[in-house]
Amino acid sequence: MIGRLNHVAIAVPDLRAAAATYAGTLGAEVGPPTPLPEHGVTVVFVRLPNTAIELLEPLGEASPIAAFLAKAPSGGIHHLCYEVADIAAAAARLEADGARILGPAKIGAHGRPVLFLHPKDFNGTLIELEEAAP
Amino acid sequence: MIGRLNHVAIAVPDLRAAAATYAGTLGAEVGPPTPLPEHGVTVVFVRLPNTAIELLEPLGEASPIAAFLAKAPSGGIHHLCYEVADIAAAAARLEADGARILGPAKIGAHGRPVLFLHPKDFNGTLIELEEAAP
Repeated sequence: MIGRLNHVAIAVPDLRAAAATYAGTLGAEVGPPTPLPEHGVTVVFVRLPNTAIELLEPLGEASPIAAFLAKAPSGGIHHLCYEVADIAAAAARLEADGARILGPAKIGAHGRPVLFLHPKDFNGTLIELEEAAP
Repeated sequence: MIGRLNHVAIAVPDLRAAAATYAGTLGAEVGPPTPLPEHGVTVVFVRLPNTAIELLEPLGEASPIAAFLAKAPSGGIHHLCYEVADIAAAAARLEADGARILGPAKIGAHGRPVLFLHPKDFNGTLIELEEAAP
């Protein structure tokens, strides 16, 4: 069912500093900061040859990564995003297997339908599934 | 400098159960458990179209992931591994930039030279660098 690893998301307290580390010390290709107010984050994509790293900084009052950074103030890996061909079929299969889906599917940072799976069902890993572009 | 994301490593308390979750619930292609006594882990590779997930279970008395699992008993994302063309050149560049390298480069799970970078220098993310095959 799961296909490509679309991205690894890393929550960071200071997006400018984190982007500079990836561009400078690690020598990667780093995009511009992009505010996504509807997701409560500002994001910088680090483009690797085979996938991407998504650096996330909280934006606004009710950011979904605020609690994570309160526990891990210097940042940390927040979630993994796998591509699936059909998000509705994936949700049905996961529910049939007893996996917990966190809220309804919505539109993610790439404009594609996404859903999140409970980390307690996947070895402490928060998993995002994104419907791949057709 | 950094190239492909070679793998994402996830520490798990029960490798058989984790491999079954990735093969069954997530429908991924999962390899056999491989003990690596010299690294203190047993590993299962989940093969994705563009990268791999490395599921790690402690092996032996002094496993390098034992402390991680003591803090996160249900498991969690342990490190990211990026490929570099030349591990010695990468180490020299990182040290010049003030990044802390954890011990000398050694031979990793794929038989290639690897080194680890201090998570405090990279937003709470433990980074492995692996010299890509020529």
